[in-house]
Amino acid sequence: MAVKGNLVVGQSGGPTAVINQSLVGVVQEARKHGLIERIFGARNGVEGVLREDFVDLGAEPDHNLEAVAQTPSAALGSCRFKPKEEDCRRIFDIFTKHNVRYFFYIGGNDSALSAGIINKIAQEANYDLVVFHVPKTIDNDLLVTDHCPGYGSAAKYVAQCFMGNDTDNRSLPGIKIDICMGRNAGWLTAASALARVCPGDGPHLIYLPERAYSLKGILEDIDASYQKNKRVLVALSEGVADSDGYLFLESDKVRAELKEMGMEAIIDGFEAQGKIEDLSGGAKKDAFGHTQLSGSGALADFLSAAVKIHLFKKYGKKARVRADTLGYAQRSMSGVVSASDAAEGREAGRAAVISAISGEQSGSICFRRLESRFGKYHCEPFRAPLEDVSGVNFPKGVKQYRPMEDKYIASSGNDVTPEFIEWVRPLVGPLPVKAVLGNMPVK
Amino acid sequence: MAVKGNLVVGQSGGPTAVINQSLVGVVQEARKHGLIERIFGARNGVEGVLREDFVDLGAEPDHNLEAVAQTPSAALGSCRFKPKEEDCRRIFDIFTKHNVRYFFYIGGNDSALSAGIINKIAQEANYDLVVFHVPKTIDNDLLVTDHCPGYGSAAKYVAQCFMGNDTDNRSLPGIKIDICMGRNAGWLTAASALARVCPGDGPHLIYLPERAYSLKGILEDIDASYQKNKRVLVALSEGVADSDGYLFLESDKVRAELKEMGMEAIIDGFEAQGKIEDLSGGAKKDAFGHTQLSGSGALADFLSAAVKIHLFKKYGKKARVRADTLGYAQRSMSGVVSASDAAEGREAGRAAVISAISGEQSGSICFRRLESRFGKYHCEPFRAPLEDVSGVNFPKGVKQYRPMEDKYIASSGNDVTPEFIEWVRPLVGPLPVKAVLGNMPVK
Repeated sequence: MAVKGNLVVGQSGGPTAVINQSLVGVVQEARKHGLIERIFGARNGVEGVLREDFVDLGAEPDHNLEAVAQTPSAALGSCRFKPKEEDCRRIFDIFTKHNVRYFFYIGGNDSALSAGIINKIAQEANYDLVVFHVPKTIDNDLLVTDHCPGYGSAAKYVAQCFMGNDTDNRSLPGIKIDICMGRNAGWLTAASALARVCPGDGPHLIYLPERAYSLKGILEDIDASYQKNKRVLVALSEGVADSDGYLFLESDKVRAELKEMGMEAIIDGFEAQGKIEDLSGGAKKDAFGHTQLSGSGALADFLSAAVKIHLFKKYGKKARVRADTLGYAQRSMSGVVSASDAAEGREAGRAAVISAISGEQSGSICFRRLESRFGKYHCEPFRAPLEDVSGVNFPKGVKQYRPMEDKYIASSGNDVTPEFIEWVRPLVGPLPVKAVLGNMPVK
Repeated sequence: MAVKGNLVVGQSGGPTAVINQSLVGVVQEARKHGLIERIFGARNGVEGVLREDFVDLGAEPDHNLEAVAQTPSAALGSCRFKPKEEDCRRIFDIFTKHNVRYFFYIGGNDSALSAGIINKIAQEANYDLVVFHVPKTIDNDLLVTDHCPGYGSAAKYVAQCFMGNDTDNRSLPGIKIDICMGRNAGWLTAASALARVCPGDGPHLIYLPERAYSLKGILEDIDASYQKNKRVLVALSEGVADSDGYLFLESDKVRAELKEMGMEAIIDGFEAQGKIEDLSGGAKKDAFGHTQLSGSGALADFLSAAVKIHLFKKYGKKARVRADTLGYAQRSMSGVVSASDAAEGREAGRAAVISAISGEQSGSICFRRLESRFGKYHCEPFRAPLEDVSGVNFPKGVKQYRPMEDKYIASSGNDVTPEFIEWVRPLVGPLPVKAVLGNMPVK
């Protein structure tokens, strides 16, 4: 059922360090097949399609494609745009005009959903279009697949960052809180556990969106760990929520806790933040209805304030508390790339084209681990039905993302299991050396 | 005048990625010389000396020393402790008891000052002690030297971070502000300019502690750059101050500007922060009288709020504004190390021991560039008088740190010069690939 025609590839959502590997994989594979006549890149994803803003990727020299593949973030530009039915109809008009019969969309959950919507409406409209979702996300929360391109490199950045933050915290002991990306799933935050190399190494506490927490519980955990280890390194996901599922900064329960603990000053800070939002055009929600979590240090500063006040009230002594929000470097750090992640990013783009050429009308590329021979990690790509990943036909209430499995989360709810470490290690690959002195006593 | 006796080495101040290279340099070189009998490490710098908390570095196996050398942050533990006269007298008692005749202190400006104080009081007390300061600082603000070990690796981290943040900002255009470390000097913030590879690359604006700014001026710069480039990446030092020298978050002038611009909500946020400080034991100042700047996202969030409100008021449209505080990874990221920085870190430790053994009673190790043969970078260590670096005898008002020279700062005050790029590039070494698509139009 594969037809002759042109191909459009786009990138969408938050970038990753290897999203261009997938772009280059699509282009290089597409060049091999006669069915695909020309290869267009849509700038800024679906937005570029709607603007008819295309670039000629077929004309891009190979050496530059290889350089772009090593460059983090979406080389075509990205977008956060959820197409409606009328957008799709316009897309088909534009595609007809340019004889586009292949559409490849590189992105995460929202992009899979966009691809799913376009595919569904194309089918309903009898528009003959091959639609593939090519996975990328640092969050690793796509359905079906073992893991997503983009995750391994982000996890490597987080691991190296925590390795350094842990030795830093050893040097100047205190409480250090690092906020990691991951709205719905804790995969990236959990990768911080790779920083543990020597006895006593942090992170000592890991908080994930898959579990519900109270502020008081977290403060008590930190206090107990601090008393025991004389220092604490905390990994906390930006998606951490209360037992009603509300993010800490939006939680009435957390506000009530703050009042109960005499920390109203923190609430005043929230109120000021609310006023700032009003003055700058309203709350930060994107087209998919998500609150902006990144690019702000609010959660880190809030927790740091709460820990400081809690410990001062309890012990009458100032504690050294620092908090960092790891920020955009998690998804786009230059030069910190997992080799297997880069290879799989490329492979995902190629596999999508091969699957399309072989006659599949739509799909999403996933990875599965092969039986480990001699203990060596090996994964292969496969095509999953686009609907299974995009969730386009899911009944209301069924989640379109994949949280961490229970087996990967410690029963305490504030750590990961050894199974998780085993699962994640090959995705990240070798990490830098980390060592401590023998601290031999002077005789 | 070199005497036979034991050696104590300590680490102090904020860690760097190569501070352990210097530690290992001291130990390895000291082992070669008969005059130095035993090699002790003081845990947590001078605090460990006062506690008689020593470890036997002479017994540390070579392979572990090499692993520690590659590990960021102070392996002996660090401190922020300024010794007073009575502390020094106690130090000499302890040194006498352990027959310590050599003291090496690895650190930045504060540590140089501590070494200077100990040396001065030792001389006054006729206590026979060789005192060397071994330089490390990511801030690069030590006097006399061309540059400091620790800076090259931190600059490399900042450069790679900005390379990624720049491509990220290209992918999803908007305004991105990144706050860099550097209380008094802009060397580290300035290194962000290494991220510029392709035409139009950011950072588009660079703000340094060496120049005075008004909030309004910065907002207008950002607005103008945004209108021109449709996106802006800003590098801003945590030490950015008003024309009276006050940090932005502590500036009455900035508060007045906020009022004038109808941004009182931001001031409410400051007030809340003040209350939080009170509740947690008071303002954040260390033993050297410095305000805590790092480990908090306050400056980034403040600027981001001001930019958002400013642009919304002016254009009635919400702007995509994000701000990251690059945080502790700047000084302790694992695996992002400049090769020349690591080598010079080791060299600094060795040179201090060689200088001491050759009969110098005190000193601070500096680096000078040699005449470039075939355009290749080469630096050599030399001993400077400890007083010249520690500033222990400086008259009040004379600065004990080295700001960026005027020739390295653009006359606009919001950028660096090509001379700076030429100066900094060899300290950082090769950077990862960064490329853009040719964006060839579809015919």
